[in-house]
Amino acid sequence: MKKVVTFGELMLRLAPNGYLRFVQADSFEATYGGGEANVAVSLSNFGVDVKFITKLPAHEIGQAAVNSLRKYGVDTSGIARGGARVGIYYLEKGASQRPSKVIYDRAFSAISLAEPKDFNWDEIFEDVEWFHFTGITPALSSGVADICLEACKKAKEKGIRVSLDLNYRKNLWSPEKAQEVITKLTPYIDVCIANEEDAEKVFGIKADNTDITGGKINYEGYKQVAEKLVQKYGFKMVATTLRESISASDNNWSAMLYDGKEFYFSKKYSVHIVDRVGGGDSFGAGLIYSQLNNFTPQESIEFAVAASCLKHTIEGDFNLMSVAEVKALASGDASGRVQR
Amino acid sequence: MKKVVTFGELMLRLAPNGYLRFVQADSFEATYGGGEANVAVSLSNFGVDVKFITKLPAHEIGQAAVNSLRKYGVDTSGIARGGARVGIYYLEKGASQRPSKVIYDRAFSAISLAEPKDFNWDEIFEDVEWFHFTGITPALSSGVADICLEACKKAKEKGIRVSLDLNYRKNLWSPEKAQEVITKLTPYIDVCIANEEDAEKVFGIKADNTDITGGKINYEGYKQVAEKLVQKYGFKMVATTLRESISASDNNWSAMLYDGKEFYFSKKYSVHIVDRVGGGDSFGAGLIYSQLNNFTPQESIEFAVAASCLKHTIEGDFNLMSVAEVKALASGDASGRVQR
Amino acid sequence: MKKVVTFGELMLRLAPNGYLRFVQADSFEATYGGGEANVAVSLSNFGVDVKFITKLPAHEIGQAAVNSLRKYGVDTSGIARGGARVGIYYLEKGASQRPSKVIYDRAFSAISLAEPKDFNWDEIFEDVEWFHFTGITPALSSGVADICLEACKKAKEKGIRVSLDLNYRKNLWSPEKAQEVITKLTPYIDVCIANEEDAEKVFGIKADNTDITGGKINYEGYKQVAEKLVQKYGFKMVATTLRESISASDNNWSAMLYDGKEFYFSKKYSVHIVDRVGGGDSFGAGLIYSQLNNFTPQESIEFAVAASCLKHTIEGDFNLMSVAEVKALASGDASGRVQR
Amino acid sequence: MKKVVTFGELMLRLAPNGYLRFVQADSFEATYGGGEANVAVSLSNFGVDVKFITKLPAHEIGQAAVNSLRKYGVDTSGIARGGARVGIYYLEKGASQRPSKVIYDRAFSAISLAEPKDFNWDEIFEDVEWFHFTGITPALSSGVADICLEACKKAKEKGIRVSLDLNYRKNLWSPEKAQEVITKLTPYIDVCIANEEDAEKVFGIKADNTDITGGKINYEGYKQVAEKLVQKYGFKMVATTLRESISASDNNWSAMLYDGKEFYFSKKYSVHIVDRVGGGDSFGAGLIYSQLNNFTPQESIEFAVAASCLKHTIEGDFNLMSVAEVKALASGDASGRVQR
Amino acid sequence: MKKVVTFGELMLRLAPNGYLRFVQADSFEATYGGGEANVAVSLSNFGVDVKFITKLPAHEIGQAAVNSLRKYGVDTSGIARGGARVGIYYLEKGASQRPSKVIYDRAFSAISLAEPKDFNWDEIFEDVEWFHFTGITPALSSGVADICLEACKKAKEKGIRVSLDLNYRKNLWSPEKAQEVITKLTPYIDVCIANEEDAEKVFGIKADNTDITGGKINYEGYKQVAEKLVQKYGFKMVATTLRESISASDNNWSAMLYDGKEFYFSKKYSVHIVDRVGGGDSFGAGLIYSQLNNFTPQESIEFAVAASCLKHTIEGDFNLMSVAEVKALASGDASGRVQR
Amino acid sequence: MKKVVTFGELMLRLAPNGYLRFVQADSFEATYGGGEANVAVSLSNFGVDVKFITKLPAHEIGQAAVNSLRKYGVDTSGIARGGARVGIYYLEKGASQRPSKVIYDRAFSAISLAEPKDFNWDEIFEDVEWFHFTGITPALSSGVADICLEACKKAKEKGIRVSLDLNYRKNLWSPEKAQEVITKLTPYIDVCIANEEDAEKVFGIKADNTDITGGKINYEGYKQVAEKLVQKYGFKMVATTLRESISASDNNWSAMLYDGKEFYFSKKYSVHIVDRVGGGDSFGAGLIYSQLNNFTPQESIEFAVAASCLKHTIEGDFNLMSVAEVKALASGDASGRVQR
Repeated sequence: MKKVVTFGELMLRLAPNGYLRFVQADSFEATYGGGEANVAVSLSNFGVDVKFITKLPAHEIGQAAVNSLRKYGVDTSGIARGGARVGIYYLEKGASQRPSKVIYDRAFSAISLAEPKDFNWDEIFEDVEWFHFTGITPALSSGVADICLEACKKAKEKGIRVSLDLNYRKNLWSPEKAQEVITKLTPYIDVCIANEEDAEKVFGIKADNTDITGGKINYEGYKQVAEKLVQKYGFKMVATTLRESISASDNNWSAMLYDGKEFYFSKKYSVHIVDRVGGGDSFGAGLIYSQLNNFTPQESIEFAVAASCLKHTIEGDFNLMSVAEVKALASGDASGRVQR
Repeated sequence: MKKVVTFGELMLRLAPNGYLRFVQADSFEATYGGGEANVAVSLSNFGVDVKFITKLPAHEIGQAAVNSLRKYGVDTSGIARGGARVGIYYLEKGASQRPSKVIYDRAFSAISLAEPKDFNWDEIFEDVEWFHFTGITPALSSGVADICLEACKKAKEKGIRVSLDLNYRKNLWSPEKAQEVITKLTPYIDVCIANEEDAEKVFGIKADNTDITGGKINYEGYKQVAEKLVQKYGFKMVATTLRESISASDNNWSAMLYDGKEFYFSKKYSVHIVDRVGGGDSFGAGLIYSQLNNFTPQESIEFAVAASCLKHTIEGDFNLMSVAEVKALASGDASGRVQR
Repeated sequence: MKKVVTFGELMLRLAPNGYLRFVQADSFEATYGGGEANVAVSLSNFGVDVKFITKLPAHEIGQAAVNSLRKYGVDTSGIARGGARVGIYYLEKGASQRPSKVIYDRAFSAISLAEPKDFNWDEIFEDVEWFHFTGITPALSSGVADICLEACKKAKEKGIRVSLDLNYRKNLWSPEKAQEVITKLTPYIDVCIANEEDAEKVFGIKADNTDITGGKINYEGYKQVAEKLVQKYGFKMVATTLRESISASDNNWSAMLYDGKEFYFSKKYSVHIVDRVGGGDSFGAGLIYSQLNNFTPQESIEFAVAASCLKHTIEGDFNLMSVAEVKALASGDASGRVQR
Repeated sequence: MKKVVTFGELMLRLAPNGYLRFVQADSFEATYGGGEANVAVSLSNFGVDVKFITKLPAHEIGQAAVNSLRKYGVDTSGIARGGARVGIYYLEKGASQRPSKVIYDRAFSAISLAEPKDFNWDEIFEDVEWFHFTGITPALSSGVADICLEACKKAKEKGIRVSLDLNYRKNLWSPEKAQEVITKLTPYIDVCIANEEDAEKVFGIKADNTDITGGKINYEGYKQVAEKLVQKYGFKMVATTLRESISASDNNWSAMLYDGKEFYFSKKYSVHIVDRVGGGDSFGAGLIYSQLNNFTPQESIEFAVAASCLKHTIEGDFNLMSVAEVKALASGDASGRVQR
Repeated sequence: MKKVVTFGELMLRLAPNGYLRFVQADSFEATYGGGEANVAVSLSNFGVDVKFITKLPAHEIGQAAVNSLRKYGVDTSGIARGGARVGIYYLEKGASQRPSKVIYDRAFSAISLAEPKDFNWDEIFEDVEWFHFTGITPALSSGVADICLEACKKAKEKGIRVSLDLNYRKNLWSPEKAQEVITKLTPYIDVCIANEEDAEKVFGIKADNTDITGGKINYEGYKQVAEKLVQKYGFKMVATTLRESISASDNNWSAMLYDGKEFYFSKKYSVHIVDRVGGGDSFGAGLIYSQLNNFTPQESIEFAVAASCLKHTIEGDFNLMSVAEVKALASGDASGRVQR
Repeated sequence: MKKVVTFGELMLRLAPNGYLRFVQADSFEATYGGGEANVAVSLSNFGVDVKFITKLPAHEIGQAAVNSLRKYGVDTSGIARGGARVGIYYLEKGASQRPSKVIYDRAFSAISLAEPKDFNWDEIFEDVEWFHFTGITPALSSGVADICLEACKKAKEKGIRVSLDLNYRKNLWSPEKAQEVITKLTPYIDVCIANEEDAEKVFGIKADNTDITGGKINYEGYKQVAEKLVQKYGFKMVATTLRESISASDNNWSAMLYDGKEFYFSKKYSVHIVDRVGGGDSFGAGLIYSQLNNFTPQESIEFAVAASCLKHTIEGDFNLMSVAEVKALASGDASGRVQR
């Protein structure tokens, strides 16, 4: 099988132990994560040959970030080394009615200051069949947005499929800026993942009557949005995760896939959450895996949702599940009985 | 805004990690807590200028107790230093059908042996508008009961509002003794907080047909109790938390406020518990805050309940929530979605 | 009261912290456990005089295993010392839809290579009234199976009651081998505990229409199985735990007892799980305790189920509950309210 | 071999992790220790049958204290259960020029309030050949001092050898009070262990020119003291540990034994300290062991010093060394090479 | 006594546990520190009324930094709140021949981007008698350099004594830039602390023949440097710490004070290091304390060196020693014997 | 540069925290290590392209072992997967006079049961210039000894240099067996590393008058041994580490290299030990690195000794030092000053 490439930022994640608040923390669990890196690790755990592209400082904290990917078999040989900062995000885990809280400290990171010459996309895309990134990456800086555009064009030239997880982040840019940048990229995108708020913020396309805080799902609205996205931007596939937030401890989780013809809805899982960060990324990885392996649309959405359901039970950003484990859940065993 | 003063004991809390039983513990998490100190910290986190009064040994364990309050901005300049012991309570956290367990080792603590001369209430009450204590404090010793009476009288003289959270503790005194001591204090109390068992044990006033272990709530009974308390003791306000214990892991939590005219019931929250110790104190702090800020009765009880609902998600005795966070919940967002 | 003896393997249990996966673990919590040792510790915590028999290496890891039992008052004077390995099992705790995972590394352990001369059953059985083991023990090796048979015969001679918890483990032997060995032991067994899969695998006796992964209970089927077991093997009592796995985090837990005449069903508990390993063993201990103390069948099954319900809230294999605590739950207080 | 009995207090020891100061501690390592309990555990690790006598509360913290001894094989069946408090000592570990710091919170502990009827010395002393206690025990309260006297008399009656480790503690009593109480006990003491300050404080017997803080040893002075002790009180044996405190991290450690005829000096060890608490107790245990086994005086003092040298490398109060390990050091291998 | 004000950056310090290298760390100990904050905390622990001035973000990480000072009684009311980043430094603790390693991530911190309007020096300097900062602060940015100059002028106007610890940091600026900025400040400085490399880098004044890596001290050279500093810049007092690095684990530590007339050398301590970061700052705090209390020059240098010797035994940047503890060492007890 | 291949066992290392004894451990630090894997990781950290060959189970513990190497960039693509056990060694860290203790539990590991068909040496040795293994590997089983011989022959055919670190382990085989097996391999060995006991046990070649426990070094004896080894077996180079064990905490460390003509002795380092396991392996890696880079003999031995000196300061088996860090020490800076 050919390779997958993902491109984005890998941050140091600093989280107090358990459910401690930031002001109680005397230590931070130190792991690494970021949308596209999370996808890369999940794919590697699925047995896919995957390369992650970013820029990281040459110092030991940068090296520790690199090592966090090597450990799980991700090819890190294409990572540019240089710059001064590893981006950071602080994560305080919520519980019950108390929401999780993220404080970003990612400005001026090595990747956000990267230049086109840091990456040789011809080399990077050798033997590659899929390229994935999220809307966070072009939001890092206009320089990185340009690099994304260059990479998309090069991918298209080489017949590489491209997926984009919109992932709108209000701390990084305004809806206006997002729309301006992303619409330059849409011509190159085959598969678009758009969760609840993304379509509205980035494309001004809105699901009617959806109240995010209320936690109810407006299925008809999601269908409309997907149809509009395909019509307007020509995506071959639109996928949407459907999260119902009952509390910070319990969520319902399912998803919808639209292939331009039919709508496919997955089973819905009631998840008792261990760590929900990276849930969307694990869905993306599941979807890419299922497409690489020619799953039917229904199989695809079931695999992607089962994978991301399981991510919610794993500490850290990375989804550390095997294909066999995901398939066991997708095919119906959600009893959680001990495996001996 | 003028100051709040709270008066009581600050204990060292020793708790095994996670859900370990006492006999499994090789280490104890060491935090500090106590009814009135918990109220003080919560108010300080709400931005209120608050002073905590107690007596603590001059040695380093006493100092660590003082520091635990300073950290959160509580004024500790009025704490008398002397004596030999910091009171201790051992806490074993329960789960599911296994109840939490508290073993007290607070006898002979510095505060329980304090004398009137340790506290100059004229100085302490300078620029103060609210004085709060719980029924635990006069139960510590008859000396401390006398100090409470002195403080109440002085507060009344100065036009300071006084709140009392009954908090009956059977390990500290008998219902008879409690009734004898507390009824001397009632003339000075404006706001009385009485949870399920308190009214009966301290005042012999009983909610009809309430089965505490069964976890059902007898609303009519609570109304009767509140009316009787107001009639008999002339409190301006009676507040009652309404806990339904489904298990050690899951509780329903709401409250009632009676202002002598109307009964106000809050929303009810289903709480997945992280740490329920201090839940009642955080309710008291919420109520005091809402009174200091002239909230309507319904706003008051919603704020106090939302505050204490959130306390159940925080490790340790102290409620580390801001006004903004409490208001976000009180105004309806209980979805626990990640705040970025 | 006379003594209880249990016989089996005591393993080192290595578990990542919290919900970490094996590949994330930089450390393992190191505790000790094994079916019959778990029963011994639980009985000792109930105040029963109990002796555990096994073989463990003379080195410090073997000693640490011995100490883990002495700590809870189990008599370890009959443990043979020698051999090279303490058997190990690695435990990864599951959550929500992700199942717990056990990797055994117990082959060639000291006990699996034990010889008849390691144990003097005449001495061991002095002043003993109950002998307990599980189906795991004879599965360790044919040598140990022989020792089991010898012990059973000796117990019978001395009028000691014998209980067997079938506990079929597919990693240790085939159904055929199990059936061959176990049927030699059945003549000596008074009380048989058989959970869901055991009866089918070991005796080919099957509850009709029970779907284990689905988590529904087929009460009629279980009755049939129990009746057949009594008819075919002459057990005086058959007990079955009834687990409904909703997820790795939540289970329903109840049990059935058949005394050859009547069927007794316990209350059913909805358990939010802390650690479910050893749940069956704690049921066995509860049952033995209730039999030693001449509880009625209904009291017996309620005590055994309450004991094992509580085990699910305790870290490690051992059930660290007192008789008073179990009785409090069995008699109806499941509210988990703080015990002060 | 017959049994050893030791009698005293077993305290909960609360120590910050590593070298943290008290005010930095968010958790305390929780172990248990106390002079005579430390001796008991060390003897049990040497293979001696040993019983520890004290009084501990019936609650779980009391039980945890009991379990800490059972774990190492000490017979705890003679421990009286009752009372409210487990005595506590807080320990802050020093380093380099910063001294370790101990804060005692042992007043009103169960043992300090024990009564003569709590202990049946006839039963306790059955099959016993050695009785050991320290000067701390009679210092706990005059009630406990009386119990010590009773025990000493009973021991003498039964021909049991008695050893006393003076261990003067200025927080517990004055030199005058100590002298008054101890001199009533001296007629029953066979072996007296007196470290640097004890002889002076308890007996007013002083080594000339010894400057404790300076860390130099005045050998002639120690000889004088030992001679005077034997002359005045008729001890059969006097042992003295000789500590040279270079810093909180490095000590020199040796000892002297006087049998009324000759002085025996041990080798001197330069110890890099892990935990020096219990160093003196481990010396006492080594001395008792060597006497029970009829070592020559030189062998005795070498064994006792090697044992206590090794204690300084072990966390907690207890000396967890085997006879073989002690003998290996005593016979000359101090290289610390890896044992495979 | 009047107040002390210190001004500078407070950073989050992230350090792997124990002696782990950065690439091994799965968690970081999270404390806070920075030259002038360290001085403030040390002075507060000496009982001095001290205010720390900086700028920190309003978010929770900024609040945690504030709390770290409040805990030790530092007045934080003058801290400007705003900006996005809390500066960070990563610390890897060395051992033996392996040096400690610091990676700074402090660019773009809130304080480095602070503006003059963030600080009202008239208010800040009310009732103040001493102002202290280090050469790191003006190195943060030219904006902060300007603020330093403004503060120095204002201090001079008000008759406040000013001390500067040169602390040259090559990562922040070049010797040329340092010299340019610092020489503008020198007219306002009364007390200058200059460790080994500072004088050369900042002022081009060099001790002859001092080889820093060799660890030998050239006393004559230091005298020359101090004389030249006083001659050239008119400082009333110059202090120099004299570190001999034997290894990352062991240092010799002493200091010299020059009052323009005489040279005073302290005792020399052989320190077994727990944490050497902040050693210089604790020296500064000791020196300020001794000056505020009118110690003689010899007393001053002995106190400052004893204080900083003890700092090397404490985890974190802050020196948590009392005046009594420092005086005990300064007056000669370096034996590290247990304090009970 | 071409590749290096190392071949051997990778074990799970289970170590109590800090200086706890085995019987005190409630958890084990879980890392991975083994002679040749340690060499591989060290070389990878030096920037060498290195492949490690072994056999590990397909399960998650086997995977965790693989990941521990991937993290540091070692090529693990040649590792055979299968078998049941990951070998284990338990490590108790000693201190001062208490030696470290290792308990092996490596029998029946996957690699010890490996077969020739598990490894295709033609593929493994593609583009390889150096092959390294230790005497432990052929000691695992006669099957593995045969594989070693096959690998050696194949290496010779391909002109690959071969190094062998004798590392005699008495738990694995007798001197007789070792001699029988190793002498078959010697014809293929270019570089032989033999520490103190190896030469005698494996070859019967003995340094005169060397007392290992005494910790003195007999330089003349070592020279004799090296000469005899070269004469008898034709090694091109013999290297010997010279450890002087002062205690478990402090060692002196140096080495000798003999190239058949001259003897080269390195500087001697006084090491304060963090973790000495893997010290010899890090020396081997340093030597291989220096040979690959054509260092002079004196440069080689200095580099290898500096590398292994630094290893003693790092937790775990692996040497995590860069070439620049090693060179800094080798060229003389042992002061351990903070690197900023």
